Amino acid sequence: MISQFQNLLSSIRPVDISLAASVQARLDDLTKPQGSLGKLEEIVMKYAVATGTADPELSRKKVFCFAADHGVAAEGVSAFPAEVTPQMVYNMLGGGAAINVLARHAGADLEVIDMGVNHDFAEHPMLRQCKVRHGSSNMAEGPAMTVEEALQAIMTGASLAIEARKQGYHLLATGELGIANTTPATALYAALLGLPVGEITGRGTGLDDEGLLHKAEVIGRSIEINRERSSTPLQALATLGGFEIAGICGLILGAASVGLPVVVDGFISSSAAVVAMKLSCRVGDYLFFSHLSNEQGHRAVMRKLGAVPILDLDLRLGEGTGAALAMQVIEASVRIYQEMATFSSAKVSGKND
Amino acid sequence: MISQFQNLLSSIRPVDISLAASVQARLDDLTKPQGSLGKLEEIVMKYAVATGTADPELSRKKVFCFAADHGVAAEGVSAFPAEVTPQMVYNMLGGGAAINVLARHAGADLEVIDMGVNHDFAEHPMLRQCKVRHGSSNMAEGPAMTVEEALQAIMTGASLAIEARKQGYHLLATGELGIANTTPATALYAALLGLPVGEITGRGTGLDDEGLLHKAEVIGRSIEINRERSSTPLQALATLGGFEIAGICGLILGAASVGLPVVVDGFISSSAAVVAMKLSCRVGDYLFFSHLSNEQGHRAVMRKLGAVPILDLDLRLGEGTGAALAMQVIEASVRIYQEMATFSSAKVSGKND
Repeated sequence: MISQFQNLLSSIRPVDISLAASVQARLDDLTKPQGSLGKLEEIVMKYAVATGTADPELSRKKVFCFAADHGVAAEGVSAFPAEVTPQMVYNMLGGGAAINVLARHAGADLEVIDMGVNHDFAEHPMLRQCKVRHGSSNMAEGPAMTVEEALQAIMTGASLAIEARKQGYHLLATGELGIANTTPATALYAALLGLPVGEITGRGTGLDDEGLLHKAEVIGRSIEINRERSSTPLQALATLGGFEIAGICGLILGAASVGLPVVVDGFISSSAAVVAMKLSCRVGDYLFFSHLSNEQGHRAVMRKLGAVPILDLDLRLGEGTGAALAMQVIEASVRIYQEMATFSSAKVSGKND
Repeated sequence: MISQFQNLLSSIRPVDISLAASVQARLDDLTKPQGSLGKLEEIVMKYAVATGTADPELSRKKVFCFAADHGVAAEGVSAFPAEVTPQMVYNMLGGGAAINVLARHAGADLEVIDMGVNHDFAEHPMLRQCKVRHGSSNMAEGPAMTVEEALQAIMTGASLAIEARKQGYHLLATGELGIANTTPATALYAALLGLPVGEITGRGTGLDDEGLLHKAEVIGRSIEINRERSSTPLQALATLGGFEIAGICGLILGAASVGLPVVVDGFISSSAAVVAMKLSCRVGDYLFFSHLSNEQGHRAVMRKLGAVPILDLDLRLGEGTGAALAMQVIEASVRIYQEMATFSSAKVSGKND
């Protein structure tokens, strides 16, 4: 497993920034004042460079929603009971969750990946059964996963991205579902980015003040108890992460390895992106951070990464909801680039000299 | 004309905020933590209350792009020559402008309204000929329009909204096109909101530092020379506005009069919205400010209005581009509200007590 993982990392190539000049020239020839489409132009540039062509396509899109349970839920760190994880998986399979609506609105396919839910699901066309275990262990008492389990989840995520590339998808999005998963995400930010637990711990699905203090205490204890086994990003993912986070990390690595851009959802997905970026310094060139989460701490994380998310809609739901919305902005950007007239073709005068 | 205008204003009814309780109850029963969809939930609330029903529809959308020329262009306040206005109208009719791409992407119809372009167009199915005059007068030398002309443009815009309502549209968006039109928009902000000209004058389509100072001087001079004839919002619109700005103002008033929400584009459209809001204190409840323009001054205007635009993408193109993008977010919000499952229907457990 570890050699496959090393192969995955080494197959991620640096993007070819020499493409930037021709992309910029085309952007500047479109019938608009130069730079007047702001972030849409930056998005086109990043998308083209990531895909390795100055003439990129964007039509087929897919949201992967990774689900898992977390042993640390036993510490009472979430406002909702753990049984909601499988209930929400069923809700997604029935088409009634927010991500169902937003993926449809974006024209994106949606697949739910069971990476580690504490429930056995029957077969369903929208569900991929990739369970590593029926939920992670309680990280406040020891490692959430073994390194081997984390690797299994990563390689599963990677294989999904590589398969999606073969199926002709142009853009992937991450989503997740897992009661208590803001707790491991916060622990990963603290461990990997050196951000103070007290500052970045938030209310998740709706903790009160007392619950918030308790959650920060549990996160601090989890980091402490796992400190000696968390010296590499992979180890930190194993001890402090979760199966869905490891799956998303793998999806990102796999996508980067085949030149497929990925839209990262909010607070949880970003923690998987941070692990991936620590594992490979080249991964960031393939990622779009979709939105600034309303979950406490996400702003500090984005600032630390130097990332400016596309949207800021105070979302704190996860599932891939922010990523699905941002997909529409990315598609709009690429369509602008592909479909607008040029100054010469449209016979429009340029700027005064 | 003035009595029709008074009738228009008096036909704008206050929204029925008693609807808010049932909308909120439904939002809170959807399978997500309460409030976790942030601004999407606020958008649904505003949309439902504006349309006067707790079960609103949103499918048919239309962008109106109002075009006009400006006499003040003769002062050299734009980086582009005035001939670009009709050229860009032709580009839109040919489908090659940014707004064509973004309206298609949003699934919105698009119509170009000639309110005062200095050019005679042949008939075209996408063009509505409503020309008041071949461009406004130079406001640095006197009033840009007579009050009668401004009223004609307003009533034209209003009739378009009322017609759109009859045709079954659910949501309208404003857009505009007119070389030099950041100059009248800035003058209107200064005159109506008391914002300092030096702070809110921006580079438009790309002025250099010297051009920027000159533009601010022209705006200051225009306000001064028209001061005595600008004591009401209608007079200010006439002396310092433009035909497309008056048309947008009318579209907004007409839409509000028939309970049709309007998505306001960026810097220019917002100036028309400010005039409309000064003419009727009820209009704001029907408006969505789509995006924070990158044009200097828009942030100060939004702050003055207490408005938080939906998007912040550094756009400064106009045409309705930001409004078309925001339409997708509004539609996503309404679809969330209409299509998501409820806790009871999906058998999902609620929050822990």
